[in-house]
Amino acid sequence: MSYAAFEAEVARVNDLLCAVNLLTWDARTVMPPGGVEARGKQIATLVSLARDAATGEAMLKALDGAEAETASAPAGDLRRRAVGDARGAIDTLRRIPAALVAEAAELKTEGQAVWAAARAADDFAAFAPTLKRTMAMQREIAGHIGHAGHPYDALCGTYEPGMTWARLQKLFSELKAGIAPLLDKARGVPVRGDILTRRYPVDRQKAFSSRIAASMGYDFGRGRLDDTVHPFEISFTRSDVRITGRFREDWLPGGLFAVWHEAGHGIYEQGVSPAFSRSVFTTDFVNLYAVGGTSFGMHESQSRLWENRVGRSRRFWDRHFADLRETFPEQLGDVPVADFWKAVNAARPSFIRVEADELTYDLHIMLRCEIEAALIDGSLDVDDLPAVWKEKMRDHLGVEVPNDTLGVLQDVHWSSGMVGSFPTYTLGNVMSSQLFRAAGAVPEVEAGLDAGDYAPLRGWLEANVLRHGRSRTPDEILLAATGKALSTEDYVADLSRKVAELAG
Amino acid sequence: MSYAAFEAEVARVNDLLCAVNLLTWDARTVMPPGGVEARGKQIATLVSLARDAATGEAMLKALDGAEAETASAPAGDLRRRAVGDARGAIDTLRRIPAALVAEAAELKTEGQAVWAAARAADDFAAFAPTLKRTMAMQREIAGHIGHAGHPYDALCGTYEPGMTWARLQKLFSELKAGIAPLLDKARGVPVRGDILTRRYPVDRQKAFSSRIAASMGYDFGRGRLDDTVHPFEISFTRSDVRITGRFREDWLPGGLFAVWHEAGHGIYEQGVSPAFSRSVFTTDFVNLYAVGGTSFGMHESQSRLWENRVGRSRRFWDRHFADLRETFPEQLGDVPVADFWKAVNAARPSFIRVEADELTYDLHIMLRCEIEAALIDGSLDVDDLPAVWKEKMRDHLGVEVPNDTLGVLQDVHWSSGMVGSFPTYTLGNVMSSQLFRAAGAVPEVEAGLDAGDYAPLRGWLEANVLRHGRSRTPDEILLAATGKALSTEDYVADLSRKVAELAG
Repeated sequence: MSYAAFEAEVARVNDLLCAVNLLTWDARTVMPPGGVEARGKQIATLVSLARDAATGEAMLKALDGAEAETASAPAGDLRRRAVGDARGAIDTLRRIPAALVAEAAELKTEGQAVWAAARAADDFAAFAPTLKRTMAMQREIAGHIGHAGHPYDALCGTYEPGMTWARLQKLFSELKAGIAPLLDKARGVPVRGDILTRRYPVDRQKAFSSRIAASMGYDFGRGRLDDTVHPFEISFTRSDVRITGRFREDWLPGGLFAVWHEAGHGIYEQGVSPAFSRSVFTTDFVNLYAVGGTSFGMHESQSRLWENRVGRSRRFWDRHFADLRETFPEQLGDVPVADFWKAVNAARPSFIRVEADELTYDLHIMLRCEIEAALIDGSLDVDDLPAVWKEKMRDHLGVEVPNDTLGVLQDVHWSSGMVGSFPTYTLGNVMSSQLFRAAGAVPEVEAGLDAGDYAPLRGWLEANVLRHGRSRTPDEILLAATGKALSTEDYVADLSRKVAELAG
Repeated sequence: MSYAAFEAEVARVNDLLCAVNLLTWDARTVMPPGGVEARGKQIATLVSLARDAATGEAMLKALDGAEAETASAPAGDLRRRAVGDARGAIDTLRRIPAALVAEAAELKTEGQAVWAAARAADDFAAFAPTLKRTMAMQREIAGHIGHAGHPYDALCGTYEPGMTWARLQKLFSELKAGIAPLLDKARGVPVRGDILTRRYPVDRQKAFSSRIAASMGYDFGRGRLDDTVHPFEISFTRSDVRITGRFREDWLPGGLFAVWHEAGHGIYEQGVSPAFSRSVFTTDFVNLYAVGGTSFGMHESQSRLWENRVGRSRRFWDRHFADLRETFPEQLGDVPVADFWKAVNAARPSFIRVEADELTYDLHIMLRCEIEAALIDGSLDVDDLPAVWKEKMRDHLGVEVPNDTLGVLQDVHWSSGMVGSFPTYTLGNVMSSQLFRAAGAVPEVEAGLDAGDYAPLRGWLEANVLRHGRSRTPDEILLAATGKALSTEDYVADLSRKVAELAG
């Protein structure tokens, strides 16, 4: 009965965190403007109750009991794994003082407001004092979490278990070496950008992208698509996983690829084993977040896989462009598929990360991570950030950043205390290629991709990634699914091939 | 500081219950079909956490401290009132064993399913065993709550504080005496029913009814209107109060009056004093429900007031029919306002409560309450219900009920363990007239109604009813606002006047 008591305690935490997810979804999609203030308090209360429930006496007692009950189970036993994982995560959570968490949450609200004003005014100095407090607090949190190497390990490890600054540096240098030679070549490919900025009625964009998302495997019977300023995916158990998109009449790829990106996240959550509902394997105790994906990076691998490996491939458009042209006959009647495909793959160095193409995106990430690591280990001072940012943009992307709004002030992350999450975007890219390559070794998957039948690919992903939920680490999943540890090889190969195709 | 600790404990309970309200709203409006099962568990967890928080050690200690701190405050002091009210409600809640509450919640889910099947099959015998268990459980709950007179008092008192079976019987007999003579007269009024069943495009119904609801005072900046099968209102603090409607193209009054009914509920919640957010005065501890209205009956008085006293008055349509006709020129171009007004006031005895007109509605309620009281005191056996129902319908409404689907099986209430809430519908009707009469004594209110300006009426209601939230009982509010205790006088007068107008 001890294990059952432990399961009940975990389910309670998970229910609370799913409710927090709903309060969040609602606030970003349908909540009337008047609701903002009260909603913030409701979320804070539920998160704090979840923390209390996760670290309280009842949970610790249940953990002890479950540990005793499963101690003699074999190493691979899922119940033993659940207990061990929960113990580790809850210990980490308990090491971060509740007062510090509350202070960080408060600073987050304040920080976002200060950042938004500073960004609008292009005034980094106005943001600097807040950013200093945030970084000091994150250093303190890193100290409580603990680390064996670099203090940044403690932070990026909460988003990507097992990730360290040393591993990242190696991975980044490989990537840099692989991407740099491709940039000039890609930049030379002529592109008809005007194709994408014609007037594309939003309802038809939605219908087309939803149709494709459904064929990829996003189940609308356990989900829905709404409009928001910033697209996102969020789940309230695998049976209710919602995505949002942002559609603009005069920018077609914005709407389409965001839907497939978020659908990729959604397919992940919907594919987690039903047995893991309300369990350790769908609960992120450290971040107090109900989620089925094993890490931020693995999650991103699924969104990038469907958005880029599938959705930006020549094969995909050879298959679906006729449908898109039928959907938009006046806009695309005169456009050959090759031109369209080139246009949605245009690679150009730019200032803004979220608008970056596939080839330059990771360079934006690298400079952010270098800065984060240096801020956390104290080797970089916040006041020097604008200059360092410009220097690094010159170095990585060869562009001259004209001001801080288009530079160091562009991202919301630091203002809300998110330090260490940026690496997961690039990790997602890398993993997406590694998994896609392994899946493609299965003839049915490859044949399906040729035929526009995505069920075999989704099935492979479900069996090898999705269904495991958080019961395996990203490293374990990669090794079992691809036969090798995390490696940049397939990603660099994919990018090289893409550039060759574009230029050829 | 003791009082502040008490406030913090209450705020926590309120936040949890507001989250429950959102989980409920979402489930009824936008949730994908897959979400049902998990949602039920999430709601159960949060309600049980709210119960724990409301009855736990921390709350009881905070209550003691707050009691000590406010003991010497004057009798009218709101803090003292809050402590006293919370003590009373929490004591009641603690008297109902948690296991019994859980059992009742379980039986509710099961009971609704059994009832729905029995209703579809017109098979009362299939529902009888479940109904017996429900009634036994409600009797047990009534025993735990306690009562000085009839056991029904314990149940109806949870929905309407201060209400008793003795008071209800007196009120019903007055009403019956007042309504019975009107029925024949009203039935004789010729009505052009066809006017209302023409094709009325739903988007225009929505636009018209929303425009009127906004002019009544429903603030869409702190609310929103969605579509559901069963219209309802629900709030997550006064700053976010949502309503839903049900629009059918071929039944115009269904859509319009439901919006104004729900808007009336919404205006109540939006009008509660901002100072009462997250406090005792917006928390129903006994029913574990976040709500600002002081009782179910007073809440219903506000929906009925806007729906019937205002929305079904001749004055209202003299003012707004031109707008409606402009909205639906093809449908209403040939219809005089008098015909339309008569059509939306047609009075005809019928089988189904929710479809009943203003005049016969309370007769449906009376028979339900008589049955509930007799089931709870044991003088009526569940097996005799179908026969008793038919007899009472003959007696109260003069109709022969052909089967149980159109009779005793029509309402969901009993199947979900709601016993004692039916009286509040009629109490709402009675209060709506009493308050409307008192408001009308203010010349500005009366002039506003003539001019289609509802701000003075809403202002009067806000000052006399809405802003108090749950800081006054319904009886206190009525006495202060109308100068007299609850009385059927104004309601019977309103109905008599309406019938005279219709017949004249």
